[in-house]
Amino acid sequence: MIKVGIIGSTGYAGQELVRLLLQHKEARIVWFGSKSYIDKKYYEVFQNMFQLVDATCMDDNMEELAENVDVIFTATPQGLCASLVNSDILSKVKIIDLSADFRIKDVSIYEEWYGITHQSPQFIHEAVYGLCEINRDQIKKARLIANPGCYPTCTTLSVYPLLKEGLIDPDSVIIDAKSGTSGAGRSAKLGNLFCEVNENMKAYGVANHRHTPEIEEQLSYAAGQDMKINFTPHLVPMNRGILITAYGNLKQKVTYDEVEAVYDKYYKNEYFIRVLDKGICPETRWVEGSNFVDVNFVIDSRTNRIIMMGAMDNLVKGAAGQAVQNMNVMFGLEENSGLQLVPMFP
Amino acid sequence: MIKVGIIGSTGYAGQELVRLLLQHKEARIVWFGSKSYIDKKYYEVFQNMFQLVDATCMDDNMEELAENVDVIFTATPQGLCASLVNSDILSKVKIIDLSADFRIKDVSIYEEWYGITHQSPQFIHEAVYGLCEINRDQIKKARLIANPGCYPTCTTLSVYPLLKEGLIDPDSVIIDAKSGTSGAGRSAKLGNLFCEVNENMKAYGVANHRHTPEIEEQLSYAAGQDMKINFTPHLVPMNRGILITAYGNLKQKVTYDEVEAVYDKYYKNEYFIRVLDKGICPETRWVEGSNFVDVNFVIDSRTNRIIMMGAMDNLVKGAAGQAVQNMNVMFGLEENSGLQLVPMFP
Amino acid sequence: MIKVGIIGSTGYAGQELVRLLLQHKEARIVWFGSKSYIDKKYYEVFQNMFQLVDATCMDDNMEELAENVDVIFTATPQGLCASLVNSDILSKVKIIDLSADFRIKDVSIYEEWYGITHQSPQFIHEAVYGLCEINRDQIKKARLIANPGCYPTCTTLSVYPLLKEGLIDPDSVIIDAKSGTSGAGRSAKLGNLFCEVNENMKAYGVANHRHTPEIEEQLSYAAGQDMKINFTPHLVPMNRGILITAYGNLKQKVTYDEVEAVYDKYYKNEYFIRVLDKGICPETRWVEGSNFVDVNFVIDSRTNRIIMMGAMDNLVKGAAGQAVQNMNVMFGLEENSGLQLVPMFP
Amino acid sequence: MIKVGIIGSTGYAGQELVRLLLQHKEARIVWFGSKSYIDKKYYEVFQNMFQLVDATCMDDNMEELAENVDVIFTATPQGLCASLVNSDILSKVKIIDLSADFRIKDVSIYEEWYGITHQSPQFIHEAVYGLCEINRDQIKKARLIANPGCYPTCTTLSVYPLLKEGLIDPDSVIIDAKSGTSGAGRSAKLGNLFCEVNENMKAYGVANHRHTPEIEEQLSYAAGQDMKINFTPHLVPMNRGILITAYGNLKQKVTYDEVEAVYDKYYKNEYFIRVLDKGICPETRWVEGSNFVDVNFVIDSRTNRIIMMGAMDNLVKGAAGQAVQNMNVMFGLEENSGLQLVPMFP
Repeated sequence: MIKVGIIGSTGYAGQELVRLLLQHKEARIVWFGSKSYIDKKYYEVFQNMFQLVDATCMDDNMEELAENVDVIFTATPQGLCASLVNSDILSKVKIIDLSADFRIKDVSIYEEWYGITHQSPQFIHEAVYGLCEINRDQIKKARLIANPGCYPTCTTLSVYPLLKEGLIDPDSVIIDAKSGTSGAGRSAKLGNLFCEVNENMKAYGVANHRHTPEIEEQLSYAAGQDMKINFTPHLVPMNRGILITAYGNLKQKVTYDEVEAVYDKYYKNEYFIRVLDKGICPETRWVEGSNFVDVNFVIDSRTNRIIMMGAMDNLVKGAAGQAVQNMNVMFGLEENSGLQLVPMFP
Repeated sequence: MIKVGIIGSTGYAGQELVRLLLQHKEARIVWFGSKSYIDKKYYEVFQNMFQLVDATCMDDNMEELAENVDVIFTATPQGLCASLVNSDILSKVKIIDLSADFRIKDVSIYEEWYGITHQSPQFIHEAVYGLCEINRDQIKKARLIANPGCYPTCTTLSVYPLLKEGLIDPDSVIIDAKSGTSGAGRSAKLGNLFCEVNENMKAYGVANHRHTPEIEEQLSYAAGQDMKINFTPHLVPMNRGILITAYGNLKQKVTYDEVEAVYDKYYKNEYFIRVLDKGICPETRWVEGSNFVDVNFVIDSRTNRIIMMGAMDNLVKGAAGQAVQNMNVMFGLEENSGLQLVPMFP
Repeated sequence: MIKVGIIGSTGYAGQELVRLLLQHKEARIVWFGSKSYIDKKYYEVFQNMFQLVDATCMDDNMEELAENVDVIFTATPQGLCASLVNSDILSKVKIIDLSADFRIKDVSIYEEWYGITHQSPQFIHEAVYGLCEINRDQIKKARLIANPGCYPTCTTLSVYPLLKEGLIDPDSVIIDAKSGTSGAGRSAKLGNLFCEVNENMKAYGVANHRHTPEIEEQLSYAAGQDMKINFTPHLVPMNRGILITAYGNLKQKVTYDEVEAVYDKYYKNEYFIRVLDKGICPETRWVEGSNFVDVNFVIDSRTNRIIMMGAMDNLVKGAAGQAVQNMNVMFGLEENSGLQLVPMFP
Repeated sequence: MIKVGIIGSTGYAGQELVRLLLQHKEARIVWFGSKSYIDKKYYEVFQNMFQLVDATCMDDNMEELAENVDVIFTATPQGLCASLVNSDILSKVKIIDLSADFRIKDVSIYEEWYGITHQSPQFIHEAVYGLCEINRDQIKKARLIANPGCYPTCTTLSVYPLLKEGLIDPDSVIIDAKSGTSGAGRSAKLGNLFCEVNENMKAYGVANHRHTPEIEEQLSYAAGQDMKINFTPHLVPMNRGILITAYGNLKQKVTYDEVEAVYDKYYKNEYFIRVLDKGICPETRWVEGSNFVDVNFVIDSRTNRIIMMGAMDNLVKGAAGQAVQNMNVMFGLEENSGLQLVPMFP
């Protein structure tokens, strides 16, 4: 039984971790960290946990946690994990960080886009980017996982095979992304009020969203060259779900079967990536509550572009589910252990 | 391993049965019945099931099913189950009927409110009303279960203890109910279109909704006398969830502790009924996707009335989850087997 | 041309006042008060006003305002209007207060339910409760209007005729109310975040909501006796709209035609109250954006109760629209001037 | 007073025409055509019109209509207007067709994308594409207006100035569009049910949506050369609103001020096009219920692309409002007559 500590258990991603781990046969949460609700019963914050969780929220003490648990999940604002971690801790416990602190290898890019000074640059090199479908082998041996961002996960998995196989021009990639509102977090901001979000759509962070360099780094690995992309996220009035519509110029004419074969080459044996049947567009409702990413593509022969699409639940595969998947790989469990949840519809 | 056949697997309740049974360790669905989608892959109707269900939709043949499965769920329109069942079938297989056909003991009341002639009145007496928290012992021995309606489940469980203990005047009970839209079913009706339901609230079936006699029958058992109630359902723009606000006149002054003790007497050991802490109102978000019913009450000493509230997921405890709970009881499994789902929020 | 000043123009009700008054031929807003956004362009707060309003938000100075405008609307938190108003101001300008400060005649009840000390009890007697359909003649001569609350407006108009005519037992009245989320205001509270409200229903303020004594006072006038009611508001995931479902015991058997005649007696000539055709339930979508209140009723002969229903837009007839209606009456304009907006659907 | 007949008054666009024209001082609807609801009171179909419209729905008889009205709006499925119109009718009455029948000049393209044979190709040449901001002069003299599609309107107005001034590469244009659900029409289809649309996002019509050739034709006029674009529409869970995110490669480096000057050149005097302040992204909530199109842009110097954005209400500027705007221009009225509606928020 893996003993788990969560730092930041009362945000949306933290609470989703709790939901998933309660249903995981081989893990047990022993520490519900929450700076905002110290000494409060966890179920008083989230009544769905009433009679399921009796624990009380604790302060964030990574040193103490390292003595008592096998793995720490940090579902906290940028900068916190980097400010808490040290060599001693890393020698005692595995860490899966859901923030962006260890995702970007070039610390100057991190500091530029996030506007903060990195407190632990010495661990960036060691940290493994926790996209199991691509970095599984390194994850197995990792002590520190940088759990990928929601947009980067869905984007990378949708576009990776075609870049890797050189079918599309790396300079042409445009990512138009749409997200439900839980991605904006659980802090009380005017812009996230029901009446401000409901019956509304907008783009935000146009040409300057922080997930841009993370996506670029991952896609650059696939393309084997430095890439710059356009990334435009949009806010949509729904709770959960991310949808990616990606555009790329085809380097040469390809058939549907050729592209399908490329996706199959990479994803045929991936439990969590479902390459849909021809003509079926990914929809967020079909993955809600699950760790699946549904992907598909359409070739537009009129413009010689390909449209690549991906849908996933931002709180599961885009955050807590992927974190649990990383835990499973790190501890030698079945990769889908605790994650065989059937998507809930409607 | 219990072999399961579902007649009507492509409505919202039928699909929820599939979702729950796929996650049930001791049951296996072997028949996905659907008159509308015969010979179509089940996952083509519900893409959430892609790579999880490979089966093809079958016609409704209860005779053949009875030879091949241990239990049949009928999630079909009123009248169908009653038209298919017979003695031979009942001798071979257990039936859990999610329609109203066998819920009301007085066939003339059924025929009046539903406007159809009952095709199998001879089985009404035998059928057991499948509210496990109240009729557990009979359910254990039953061959034919009348799975309760969504509104009657939430109402009865919210009001039952106070009527049973004689704290409220049976003639004073008023039920104001609110439901998400999945309760209206999956047929293509103008009134259920997104733009007709979204940003709207309305009452419907005022003073003539078909669940009225079902509720009255169950509450009458509790009160030990014939009851007439007011029942007003409302449609609310959300997918899942039922909320009951029930009003009753207190026969005499009572304290909070006295009423709490009454709820505890009946529900203390019930896994699926959560009597919330003092002052916490039930909310549908805290039970979504789960088989829980959250209940609570407020005493209004100014008017000498008590307000009883209940919240549940209409597709789980109000339909498919309760049906699985009944199956568990009938087959001697743990009552919450396959139903220990943590409510999903947000 | 009536010169208008608004104190509190950047809440939802204040912004709705702006929307309505911009379309009013005989009024012009000259003062956009907003403590939170002083010196900011109004359209920067509400981009819908871009190129329609060029004004800058001003501090709240009622003394100065009184010199410069004909009427002041206060769309501010409880207590503010009472703390600003004085005899000098009232001698110079008419005031329409959208808060609760002057709605309740018994100051001790106000102070008990609102938990604050009334700063200007000397004006309570003079203030006129601004429900035009009932108090039109006093409103014509008033200097100070207490603009009714949203729930009290919809409730009173739905129930008034039957109480006035003595058809229902005053002791039996139960009000089950449902509201969209704009009624909760525009402050950044966790409970009003999109993900907390969407896909959820709940009751709140059960047996202690502040609108209770206001409703009781108005209904008591109708009944000609002191009344206590049950009032239970619910929050529903939509922007605008209030729906009232009211229950009362009939004193004696009545026919549909008799009750319809009673409603006609009071509302036949009321532009803003639409008594719907037999069998049509009020729905909030049919009044959205307008000042209409749609009402209707169903007699339940089985229980000898009557169900009275009302639907309106909480920001229009429940706040800003009613305030404009009051202004029209006070200044001798056509009562529906600027308020002939066709409800917007969908 | 302009006498108006509407053929197809009971779809969403038709009903919106009624809403707008009821508030238009110089027009009066004398014919509410609706094949589906002949002889039914119009308000029985749309209860928002109760006590505002007393008319009865009529069959579609364009010959008879031509004798009695000044202008006919056809808000009908593709093909109907083309099958009804003839020279005699056109000599008597002006026609504003909200369908696609006369939007595309090359009849073979129309027939290929719509899959139907055009019944009146002889009038295509004469028909004027009713985008007032671009074709105002021809509209003044037109007898037959092809009212633009919703996506083409928002796209063309967002992208037009930059193409016209040659700032972007015509071969690089990608349009990622998002729409509320009223754009899907009011027919009872499974895919448009509340529970299918709510809490979901999806792309549809990828690389084959019918609005593609219409957009391409209009953009080609602007660019002065034949253009092919990528156009990907998405369905979003909200009633009203279209948001366009368009991408183009800049031919050379440009500054913010240079691009702003280009937009100003074309839109400075356009009442209905609002070029937002620097850094403000268009949002659908700020135009809801109005005829405004809000546009803006962001230059991404990292990729040398420009992101152009537009937001509007699909039922107003994307359908009925634009049709009324065309009517105003055709009849020599103020162009914003009846259309000075303040956007409704929230």
